[in-house]
Amino acid sequence: MASNSGNAKKQAFVGTFVHSKKLDELEYLHDTVVCVDPSGKIVAVERECDAKKAEQILFAKLGWDAADVQVHVCKEGQFFFPGFIDTHIHASQYPNVGIFGKSTLLDWLNTYTFPMEASLSSLSKARRVYTRCIRRTLAHGTTTAAYYATISVPSTSLLADLCLSLGQRAFVGRVCMDRLGPSYYLDESPEAALSATKASIEHIRSIDPNYDLITPILTPRFAPSCTADTMKRLGALQAETGLPVQTHISENVNEITLVRDLFPDSEHYAGVYDDCGLLTPKTILSHAIHLSEDEAELITARGSKVAHCPCSNSAITSGEARVRWLLDKGIGVGLGTDMSGGYSPSILEAARLACLVSRHLAMGDGKGGAADAATMMVQQVSAEERERAKLSVEEVLYLATKGGAAVVGLEGKVGGFEVGMEWDAQLVGLGVVGEVAEGKGVDQVEGEDEGNVDLFGWESWEDRVAKWLFNGDDRNTKRVWVRGRLVHSRV
Amino acid sequence: MASNSGNAKKQAFVGTFVHSKKLDELEYLHDTVVCVDPSGKIVAVERECDAKKAEQILFAKLGWDAADVQVHVCKEGQFFFPGFIDTHIHASQYPNVGIFGKSTLLDWLNTYTFPMEASLSSLSKARRVYTRCIRRTLAHGTTTAAYYATISVPSTSLLADLCLSLGQRAFVGRVCMDRLGPSYYLDESPEAALSATKASIEHIRSIDPNYDLITPILTPRFAPSCTADTMKRLGALQAETGLPVQTHISENVNEITLVRDLFPDSEHYAGVYDDCGLLTPKTILSHAIHLSEDEAELITARGSKVAHCPCSNSAITSGEARVRWLLDKGIGVGLGTDMSGGYSPSILEAARLACLVSRHLAMGDGKGGAADAATMMVQQVSAEERERAKLSVEEVLYLATKGGAAVVGLEGKVGGFEVGMEWDAQLVGLGVVGEVAEGKGVDQVEGEDEGNVDLFGWESWEDRVAKWLFNGDDRNTKRVWVRGRLVHSRV
Repeated sequence: MASNSGNAKKQAFVGTFVHSKKLDELEYLHDTVVCVDPSGKIVAVERECDAKKAEQILFAKLGWDAADVQVHVCKEGQFFFPGFIDTHIHASQYPNVGIFGKSTLLDWLNTYTFPMEASLSSLSKARRVYTRCIRRTLAHGTTTAAYYATISVPSTSLLADLCLSLGQRAFVGRVCMDRLGPSYYLDESPEAALSATKASIEHIRSIDPNYDLITPILTPRFAPSCTADTMKRLGALQAETGLPVQTHISENVNEITLVRDLFPDSEHYAGVYDDCGLLTPKTILSHAIHLSEDEAELITARGSKVAHCPCSNSAITSGEARVRWLLDKGIGVGLGTDMSGGYSPSILEAARLACLVSRHLAMGDGKGGAADAATMMVQQVSAEERERAKLSVEEVLYLATKGGAAVVGLEGKVGGFEVGMEWDAQLVGLGVVGEVAEGKGVDQVEGEDEGNVDLFGWESWEDRVAKWLFNGDDRNTKRVWVRGRLVHSRV
Repeated sequence: MASNSGNAKKQAFVGTFVHSKKLDELEYLHDTVVCVDPSGKIVAVERECDAKKAEQILFAKLGWDAADVQVHVCKEGQFFFPGFIDTHIHASQYPNVGIFGKSTLLDWLNTYTFPMEASLSSLSKARRVYTRCIRRTLAHGTTTAAYYATISVPSTSLLADLCLSLGQRAFVGRVCMDRLGPSYYLDESPEAALSATKASIEHIRSIDPNYDLITPILTPRFAPSCTADTMKRLGALQAETGLPVQTHISENVNEITLVRDLFPDSEHYAGVYDDCGLLTPKTILSHAIHLSEDEAELITARGSKVAHCPCSNSAITSGEARVRWLLDKGIGVGLGTDMSGGYSPSILEAARLACLVSRHLAMGDGKGGAADAATMMVQQVSAEERERAKLSVEEVLYLATKGGAAVVGLEGKVGGFEVGMEWDAQLVGLGVVGEVAEGKGVDQVEGEDEGNVDLFGWESWEDRVAKWLFNGDDRNTKRVWVRGRLVHSRV
């Protein structure tokens, strides 16, 4: 399967590489060469090297003939950065981005979301929507996405096909929901939900047998829209297959009340999933805004992960997730666009908004303004703790890459530049402001639109990365690769 | 002065016009023709009209010869929108956008701001920075900006010159500060501050005698960095000249404490300005986050206005300004980028973030998380009141245009499409997603980069505007005019 087998060429990338060393530290590898084999795997990361040295020494060490190697040298000021991981995105809601009014979760679902998702049973419409969504997110540097499709199996299969052919690494989930949705958009029974899920898994296995690029993901929408029966069957399927799971948790206070009413026997929202065998080390829990201490401890014990979706959480007034608190508990956190609860397709914007939301936490009571859902008690938080809530540039970029990789179970495989990892990367270029002669209004080299980042030349590398984070957009993402394959290019 | 005299041609704009009718209502004028005379003034707004009808009937009514009229017809799906008003922007801090780390106001000023501003006494550096800032904001549709320059008169004069020549309507303020700045960046005395201010006014009068495009604005930086003597002299100058004033108020809790210590005889922060004669109907107060009820009442009584700067307020952790509360008090509110406290040059992004910040208020205690600065008491706010805090798409676009116009004293002159107003406008175009044939990954018409707004064709006009607000950027601003003059074009 050519589209699934990487670039099928030996490649060497030359220049500056920036990636997360740890949560609060970016590593800047200048004058470095990264060699990628035809399967898309990084086989060398050579410091103090350039194209010439690579040709003279490095390729030989790898047993490569220089004539067989495609060499990519980044221009002055450009750098390679790991591809972004979107840990939570509804491909099927893409056409609704920006359309949410003043709604909150439960009315938003009924007004905007269910009708749109249901309409994608039309495969020509689904093709149009999914193609645009994949191409758009690739253009923003998203090399891996954990997708919710719809309840339709053919539509979900189409999403998997399109990810494979366009080259985006993806987890593709057929949505399970057998209650509390509109009558026109529901699984008929737990059996029907399960058999549709299995059909979706089978399709993905048929197009990508080793899940090299596309992996099925079990997707109970969220507890309010799934019966315990359905969730228990999915839990058993998880235990049997080892497949990942994705769902929502503790996004909105009314939703939490609803879950308490629907599952009176479970200790709390996290407990509902745990009781169904869905709280696993391979489970991605989106939002996790209003968790209690008990819930966080349970999640830590089970090793489940969290997809933080700041754009969505602010837009539909869900709350301010306490990322520092989650990290302190030892819970892995990544970023999600959560389109179309979130309006932006960009994980760079999610990172930017994660910074802002953390500052809103620091400005408030440190509890996201929301009372502890379990106790409805607002706790006073010290000024020091509030200050600690703030996330730095380095931290949000970690969440966008290495943190996200761990959330989707790809730690050590993507999210950084190390030997043995796969080449899921983006080439970033920023705009340079020229000198202005007196009497002239022109200060920019003519040519490509370089976007809104303006470098004056005196910025440190840390400043450049900060400028990219805060004003960068898809114009700065010049090229994108997944498993060594070039999947997007502006140049 | 050609550059200051509009387009010097008769023009007719044909198509769809969208502008604010009132705070919470946008008006959509389809099939409309707007005629603009050579001075840049709107002389006709004709409904149910097109280019042909205009030529046959409308031009004759105006006494125009069709041969003399330049006709601009917007393409299917495009629309004209009033130019944005940036009510608070530091041109001199432009190179620092995105660079603020975890700082808050007072350390941010010393670490990043004062050194950059001081360095712009170099006119070649100032030319480069200001040119880029003006061109960048024009490209984002900002037709009017209330600028802070630096304490240097020549550098401030250069900013005025550049605005005039590049065609941006501007208020240009030479910054006054005679204490609490670094020794290398301070006015030597109140007399020196005043005489430099007057020199700056004189320069602007010499290049634009009637202040048609460029208006000087009195600019005491903020109370902590000005002696009462300097502020009183500026207050007297305001009374004498009738010129507008801009300053900061109540941005940060430590700043408020500092003001209380520095001005023990004034009742509160707003009282300090009032005691100096600076709280006038022509005063723009930036931020106004932590105002007390008393201060708000005083500001209402004096008729001063507020520049809301959500990007800055979130980025440097200042607080969440209560826009609804200000509006309820009858205080005029506009939007400011506040670069580089804010990182974005875009008023569209400021509008977007105003939406989000209002939702953070709704999620919190409705007081912006901050205690009332005067009483340090957190008041409980009802759920209904919190819900009311949310700003709609229509409301933030009002703040960005008509609201901003009133803040800078240009109500009735810019910010909408009415006869007698001036043609300060932008042409907005959004991307259209094509059909995708099976087996093809291409879904976009080749050609210009249309940005991140994807229209599928079924969206209402309200949806289109919401999509523009949330995912639009400078790529969607195709053309920009000020006083009838085309000052930016992507096509």
